[in-house]
Amino acid sequence: MFQIKARDGLGKIGKLEINGKTIETPTIMPVIHPDPDKQLVPMETVKKLADVVITNSYIIYSKPELREIAEKKGVHKLIGFDKVVVTDSGSFQLSVYGSIDVKPLEIVEFQEKIGVDVGTILDIPTPPYADRERAEKEMEETIRRGRESLELKRENNYKMLLNGTIQGSTYMDLRRRCAEIMGSMNFDIYPIGAVVPLLEKYDYKTLVDVILNSKMGLPTNKPVHLFGCGHPTLFAISVLLGCDLFDSAAYALYAKDDRYLTENGTYYLEDLKDLKQFPCSCPVCSEYSPREVYNMDKKEKEKVLAEHNLYVTFEEMSRVKEAIREGALWELVELRCRSHPRLLEAYRQALKYVEFIEKFDPVTKKSGFFYSGYESLFRPEVIRHKERIHRIRFEKIYITTVSKDVEKPYSENLKILPSDVDILVKDDVFGLIPLNIDLIYPLLQSEVPELYDIEKSHNKKFVKEFIERYKDRIMDIVTYNYYISYYNSKENKKKINSDIIKIDRMLQYQYGFKILDEEVIKRIIVRRSKRTGWIRNVLIVKDGEKKVLFTLRSYDNFLIPTAEGAKLLHSKIPYPKYRVVVDRSVERFAREGRSVYAKFVVDCDRDLRPYEEVLVVNEDDELLGYGTTILNGRELMEFNYGVAVDMRGGISDKEQ
Amino acid sequence: MFQIKARDGLGKIGKLEINGKTIETPTIMPVIHPDPDKQLVPMETVKKLADVVITNSYIIYSKPELREIAEKKGVHKLIGFDKVVVTDSGSFQLSVYGSIDVKPLEIVEFQEKIGVDVGTILDIPTPPYADRERAEKEMEETIRRGRESLELKRENNYKMLLNGTIQGSTYMDLRRRCAEIMGSMNFDIYPIGAVVPLLEKYDYKTLVDVILNSKMGLPTNKPVHLFGCGHPTLFAISVLLGCDLFDSAAYALYAKDDRYLTENGTYYLEDLKDLKQFPCSCPVCSEYSPREVYNMDKKEKEKVLAEHNLYVTFEEMSRVKEAIREGALWELVELRCRSHPRLLEAYRQALKYVEFIEKFDPVTKKSGFFYSGYESLFRPEVIRHKERIHRIRFEKIYITTVSKDVEKPYSENLKILPSDVDILVKDDVFGLIPLNIDLIYPLLQSEVPELYDIEKSHNKKFVKEFIERYKDRIMDIVTYNYYISYYNSKENKKKINSDIIKIDRMLQYQYGFKILDEEVIKRIIVRRSKRTGWIRNVLIVKDGEKKVLFTLRSYDNFLIPTAEGAKLLHSKIPYPKYRVVVDRSVERFAREGRSVYAKFVVDCDRDLRPYEEVLVVNEDDELLGYGTTILNGRELMEFNYGVAVDMRGGISDKEQ
Ligand SMILES: [Mg+2]
Ligand SMILES: [Mg+2]
Ligand SMILES: [Zn+2]
Ligand SMILES: [Zn+2]
Repeated sequence: MFQIKARDGLGKIGKLEINGKTIETPTIMPVIHPDPDKQLVPMETVKKLADVVITNSYIIYSKPELREIAEKKGVHKLIGFDKVVVTDSGSFQLSVYGSIDVKPLEIVEFQEKIGVDVGTILDIPTPPYADRERAEKEMEETIRRGRESLELKRENNYKMLLNGTIQGSTYMDLRRRCAEIMGSMNFDIYPIGAVVPLLEKYDYKTLVDVILNSKMGLPTNKPVHLFGCGHPTLFAISVLLGCDLFDSAAYALYAKDDRYLTENGTYYLEDLKDLKQFPCSCPVCSEYSPREVYNMDKKEKEKVLAEHNLYVTFEEMSRVKEAIREGALWELVELRCRSHPRLLEAYRQALKYVEFIEKFDPVTKKSGFFYSGYESLFRPEVIRHKERIHRIRFEKIYITTVSKDVEKPYSENLKILPSDVDILVKDDVFGLIPLNIDLIYPLLQSEVPELYDIEKSHNKKFVKEFIERYKDRIMDIVTYNYYISYYNSKENKKKINSDIIKIDRMLQYQYGFKILDEEVIKRIIVRRSKRTGWIRNVLIVKDGEKKVLFTLRSYDNFLIPTAEGAKLLHSKIPYPKYRVVVDRSVERFAREGRSVYAKFVVDCDRDLRPYEEVLVVNEDDELLGYGTTILNGRELMEFNYGVAVDMRGGISDKEQ
Repeated sequence: MFQIKARDGLGKIGKLEINGKTIETPTIMPVIHPDPDKQLVPMETVKKLADVVITNSYIIYSKPELREIAEKKGVHKLIGFDKVVVTDSGSFQLSVYGSIDVKPLEIVEFQEKIGVDVGTILDIPTPPYADRERAEKEMEETIRRGRESLELKRENNYKMLLNGTIQGSTYMDLRRRCAEIMGSMNFDIYPIGAVVPLLEKYDYKTLVDVILNSKMGLPTNKPVHLFGCGHPTLFAISVLLGCDLFDSAAYALYAKDDRYLTENGTYYLEDLKDLKQFPCSCPVCSEYSPREVYNMDKKEKEKVLAEHNLYVTFEEMSRVKEAIREGALWELVELRCRSHPRLLEAYRQALKYVEFIEKFDPVTKKSGFFYSGYESLFRPEVIRHKERIHRIRFEKIYITTVSKDVEKPYSENLKILPSDVDILVKDDVFGLIPLNIDLIYPLLQSEVPELYDIEKSHNKKFVKEFIERYKDRIMDIVTYNYYISYYNSKENKKKINSDIIKIDRMLQYQYGFKILDEEVIKRIIVRRSKRTGWIRNVLIVKDGEKKVLFTLRSYDNFLIPTAEGAKLLHSKIPYPKYRVVVDRSVERFAREGRSVYAKFVVDCDRDLRPYEEVLVVNEDDELLGYGTTILNGRELMEFNYGVAVDMRGGISDKEQ
């Protein structure tokens, strides 16, 4: 039972229901030692920070004294944690010792028996760069065990959820295949397994490949757990790529090694001991100076370091969540990936999958696009604009440049001769910006520093191809002889309303179709704000009355439809574009403007991106309402839980 | 009384003595409201975090009730802080109100009277982009007041130190001139003034210009205070560019505005209120949830936010200090500058001054060179290598490439035919790496991700120019026909000791002169570690005995001389190169191997960089000892306090 509340990239804030308890993702599960005497950080601190922990069912199973308590009182009592408890199955021990003393189904059964909330199948963790033959064989064994475990669960009506781990070593087609097969089997959560050796080798680039190939195969409506990844430097990028759950033994393991975690890397305590203050203000670091901790006895030092490590781990997860809410997760990742060259390499690798990621990336974000270096040129916001610019049916194009002294938006700050010519300004980041749409996110809502020459020439190819594609419609490039003579021509003398042309182009850019035909244009009024002078509303004269069709939303200048606008869109955009089709059974609710739940979506425009403005219709394409889709086209079909479309309003059947 | 303890870039950890109290720089002075009722953060928290605070002497002067207490009990008692108290003079009020009610010398006198530790002249803060005429006139007035204030201080034997503020608006020649003139007047600390409007406009690029042009004019032995800069995002870059002191009213001002500081930017509390936890673990953020703080009454909220803001401010300064100690300040700056495009722009601007900065940047660092993006190609470590490669007197050059599967160091991991040919490998970052020196920092100690093509072609020009310059000495480029035939030739049959050739090149690279002549080479033995197989020591046979000349230092593979090695260097490097010349009066101490204090340095090699291995000599160029210089050539001449050379050993006069 997983639903999406907010998102950026493939990252999301989700709500996951587990046995009646709800957790918010992304989150981190501290690894708890099942033997309370061996647990480093006091459970009070863990409880304060965590809603879910993970412990090892195989250790409990193997140690009679732990097993007895767990079987009698349950795993929650054993470890002293009453929120969600996840368990691993012993596959880690398998990876270390080669074999273990429990059968695959036995350990699944045991996990249910001791009252685990989320158990894990006994998958086979094939290490990176294993023989392909081995990887394939072990992957198949993992899948077989997965299938049997699920059957066991179904037959016996297990209460616990089940983790279906993805394997396949570093063969990306195997990872994808494993994800597709396991993904079709209806596990509750999908861990990505056997990545620890990659982390140990700083091979974050391959980690990115593994995550993304697994994601490509997996259903979108299940959370993904990046098994064994607990270092805070990796949270931002892993969440961006679609991981929702993390577990951290790192907080304790690093502490045992006298190592101090930060979101940008790890220090040896030795190297910090001469600092007056720790570079952290957590309760531990506020209480002790580095020298004091350095001089503690081994046991105490470990405990104190583990506690700090746990604090910064959760701190970083809060930052990641905040970034998602703001629509600034890419920015956070671009920041974090500078903390180690291997991380930068990983981010560069991730950008090679931009086409896949872009499908999940919201079309609009609350915070602007921040350019943080050459890599930013490959972000989905940029790639999407270069695709969507072609949605506009240009007829007369004038391509030009604008002096860098002119501030954005050019359309408001330059004196432009009124005409139906589309003026496109060369832009170092976005390639070409049509002045008619230059208010729209991210074209206006972007911050770019002065660029290097190599960055400035990045879009040459794009511009060249654009010119080639539109060559018969281009009047001028840079010089404006034709443009001027056209402007003075008779043809241009027919009354031109630049504002209407602008709205026409904005709607084409936003929806991909021509919404304003000649008939509509005659009746349209564009209203500017008296205060700012900027366009605010688009109205139509209908039966002598003026009705608002669209309002420009202040933070992104998207044209947000009213009911009247939705009807216009519905009449101009061919089915199934921009449609979310719902089941008859919820037609009434939709018409009342109530949220559309994913469960009732029967079809949709598969090309939808999150946060697009959509039309909610029934199977006969009758308009029921309109709102913002939380999910993209693929997710709309795959999710069957939670809200799919945040409705702005409904259309009563009388209205139509 | 300022001395340098550790450094990176123009940044340094310094020790500043003020009226018998010692503070460590860089540090931040919280701005304390002189009226205790108006002070937001409890002084207990301030005392816990800060060793120095700043308050406003003009407010004290203008408010009879405050003035009375200050005159009677002193400023320390007034604000309740017994460590170092700095005061501003009212020039901020001047910038806001245009005029104030106190005479320049009067306020200086008043500051001394109330027992201030560091007072400030009443400078005139010309805003950015003012008329040049005005900027020049006001700058001259500031200088005049500075001169008179210093006279007043001298005549009356003031106890307090005096801040001599640098003005000049955004005219860089004026800033430099002002810095030179004020710099010649022996103030104790040099604030850079009137930068707040730049901060407010995010014009960090101009801020960089202002800082660096001021630094160029100022003496190196006085700390610099970046007046009015208290946002933690700016600490790393400002310290890198040579600022030592900061003051923060920001912690309180932002709090009043419901804003929450982080090292990467500022949030409105409003935007955080839905987070479960703050992205911080300071005592405040550990105690309250965002929602709880959001719901507090105005007064309480302000106090809580101000406290958090102060914590993160000091946290960031700890990070900056840790980075300096590690030699990773560039890395930290490259990380921080990604948090805002204007900061990235500022960093790019700073790199334009790399030639100036490089003179102060240590030749070796404990941590490696981390590549964080295209900008890294312009760092001083890279620029310096491209200069110093020419120190080697190449005779036969073979330029080649190495497959990216081969790991560094190539010299140890490739099978190389023994010969006296210098093999230079093309390198995307460092241009060309001679295999004979490829162990030396930063050539081996660097981490670089997979690069983009545009990065890979960056060094084309450098390589081309190198080939042009050495064209008559190049045997082969990439193909190795000549190299092979030379290798098999009679000429190459004379016994070649590759290890000695390697040491020869390493010494040339490190010192710029040929140290091993034919005579010496005959008697040299290079010893490799039995464990690692790598070169460890260089020995010489002298009077039948083997004596160690140099040892390779493990973290950077610099050749560290023994006394014997120092004597060899002294005989081969012409005066004044690599010399620090000390006064007769300390000759005895130097010969005993005791630290050389800056005060007694009478001359030196002006091209020295920090952390170079130097020869300490007397005015007759007799070798007294050898060690590591903490200061560069310019600083060695300007400092007259603290250690200049960390001595490794002395040379008794009998030995010579
Ligand atoms: Mg953003
Ligand atoms: Mg470094
Ligand atoms: Zn801490
Ligand atoms: Zn805090």
